[in-house]
Amino acid sequence: MQISSTASDFKQTFDEFHSQIEETLHSLFTSRLPDSLYHPIAYLFEGGGKRLRPILTMVSAGAVGNNPDDALQCGTAMEILHNFTLVHDDIMDKSPIRRGRETIHKRWNESTAILSGDVMIGVAYNIIISSSRLLPKFDDILTAFTHGLVEVCEGQAMDLDFQHQTTVIMNEYIDMIEHKTARLLEMSAAIGGLVGNGTIEQNEALKKFALHLGIAFQIQDDILDLTAQQHELGKFIGQDIVEGKKTYLIIRATEKAKSEQHRTLLKHFYDEKGLAGESIEQMKTMMDELGVFADAQNEVNRQLEFSCSALKVLPKNYYTLMLEWLTTIVNERKK
Amino acid sequence: MQISSTASDFKQTFDEFHSQIEETLHSLFTSRLPDSLYHPIAYLFEGGGKRLRPILTMVSAGAVGNNPDDALQCGTAMEILHNFTLVHDDIMDKSPIRRGRETIHKRWNESTAILSGDVMIGVAYNIIISSSRLLPKFDDILTAFTHGLVEVCEGQAMDLDFQHQTTVIMNEYIDMIEHKTARLLEMSAAIGGLVGNGTIEQNEALKKFALHLGIAFQIQDDILDLTAQQHELGKFIGQDIVEGKKTYLIIRATEKAKSEQHRTLLKHFYDEKGLAGESIEQMKTMMDELGVFADAQNEVNRQLEFSCSALKVLPKNYYTLMLEWLTTIVNERKK
Repeated sequence: MQISSTASDFKQTFDEFHSQIEETLHSLFTSRLPDSLYHPIAYLFEGGGKRLRPILTMVSAGAVGNNPDDALQCGTAMEILHNFTLVHDDIMDKSPIRRGRETIHKRWNESTAILSGDVMIGVAYNIIISSSRLLPKFDDILTAFTHGLVEVCEGQAMDLDFQHQTTVIMNEYIDMIEHKTARLLEMSAAIGGLVGNGTIEQNEALKKFALHLGIAFQIQDDILDLTAQQHELGKFIGQDIVEGKKTYLIIRATEKAKSEQHRTLLKHFYDEKGLAGESIEQMKTMMDELGVFADAQNEVNRQLEFSCSALKVLPKNYYTLMLEWLTTIVNERKK
Repeated sequence: MQISSTASDFKQTFDEFHSQIEETLHSLFTSRLPDSLYHPIAYLFEGGGKRLRPILTMVSAGAVGNNPDDALQCGTAMEILHNFTLVHDDIMDKSPIRRGRETIHKRWNESTAILSGDVMIGVAYNIIISSSRLLPKFDDILTAFTHGLVEVCEGQAMDLDFQHQTTVIMNEYIDMIEHKTARLLEMSAAIGGLVGNGTIEQNEALKKFALHLGIAFQIQDDILDLTAQQHELGKFIGQDIVEGKKTYLIIRATEKAKSEQHRTLLKHFYDEKGLAGESIEQMKTMMDELGVFADAQNEVNRQLEFSCSALKVLPKNYYTLMLEWLTTIVNERKK
């Protein structure tokens, strides 16, 4: 086992896993009938993506001492489940673009987006069942997967509820993103550990690692909504502000805003359930003045430290180190 | 085992199973949080329903010689899966009422209906997993359930495709309803047989029974759309005609129409993708004149005969006789 690995080793492994996942996704949805159901899904996956969840599944299987390839199928199922949530969330949020391409409901219509999303759940279960029915922890894998499905829906419901709540406090926000974003990452790692037949202690460590990675990831998403470059992000800058989303930034700004000017801007945001595009820059300036971006970044760092500390109980192997490296990748991402 | 059973015995068993299912559904969704996600589902189930699928699951478990109660949970999961399809289909069809009450997307909004439908899939899997993980045929139960989920989506996609096809021939229609309606009934019976640990031959018989019951059921749905009493049906009479659905009736009428008047009416239906409410009566008269209702009823009878003939290989017990009785119940239904 090579312990003194470099970032370029991890990057190479990452890219290899990424290719395997792309190939698996491609073979699942291309030329499947009826075309009206499966073609939009093939289109969605052609748009690419970080594939963080399935890579997490594969690396987690490696971290508990097994072959990451054995977790490729289950990881792919997690990616499909994640993408089902994107397709349906994009309808609810009326988002026109995703990964630089038109969303399914926009390019086709809402019915297609609802139905293509639905069938993705079934396809994902099919993969889980066929790839792991003979594994000793098959029941636990299924339970974790189903837990992920239910909680991601609960998280999205909480997020929609926020639209009608006048104020959202930080604890509610963290609870929501734990459900909506972090749980699927947690389950991705957990399933990797289960496929790899890790001990209960190891699997708990993997879950803790991924839960905090997920929280960090979502707060970063909130930051990138205002700070990313348009051509890198693949969606409009300030979309959360326009949609009236109560993100980490908005909640933190509300906690800190004291001046008349800042309070007026926030009141306007809350009253109108979002701001017009031309006010995005003003919002960004306020966030800067209040030190909200710095607070958010500190919280990201704090969550990633929790992640790394969870890794102590895992075997000191190449893949455990790669998990640690993944936190730096997440921290440095630009999209 | 009581073989000389009467219809009133079967009716009593039916009602007992129905109550057990209602109770299970009620306990699953009432007071579950977040309220915005689960309350609409509780509302949906409060609206009642025939519960044909879970009853089929329970009776099928009995027919292969086991306790129907053991299949209550899996049957309930089938009912939840069925209702998920109703919630999402109602959005796509823009249907305002279902079982005499406002549909979820109408009473709340589309986002709620999408999300409540989504989580129902997860809840249904949870029930399947927790109730049958220790059964010898757990894998087969899961596979059947997942098969049902995927095919029902494929069937709905085919149905939506029909809206853009100028003509639909009878074979395409039968293929569509096999996917959209009959497969879930088939899987309901199959899962009952698997829970009851039936032989492969018995389970094949149960599937054949339920597949044809499902085809009959859907053709009857098509008939009832025009012939039911408004207060019994729980939705608007002629809704299929207004929505431009290519039902058994429309396809058969298209096959048979020769007169100028009939062809003009059908051309209007196809060109306008449906007719205004005031033309429903005219459509009904045409169907009568062409003998389409009689053809449809003959097809229902023929399908139900296939169903009954499949029962021959099953043990001659109370529940096998009850399956036969179920075909008469389906045939005589008014809603």
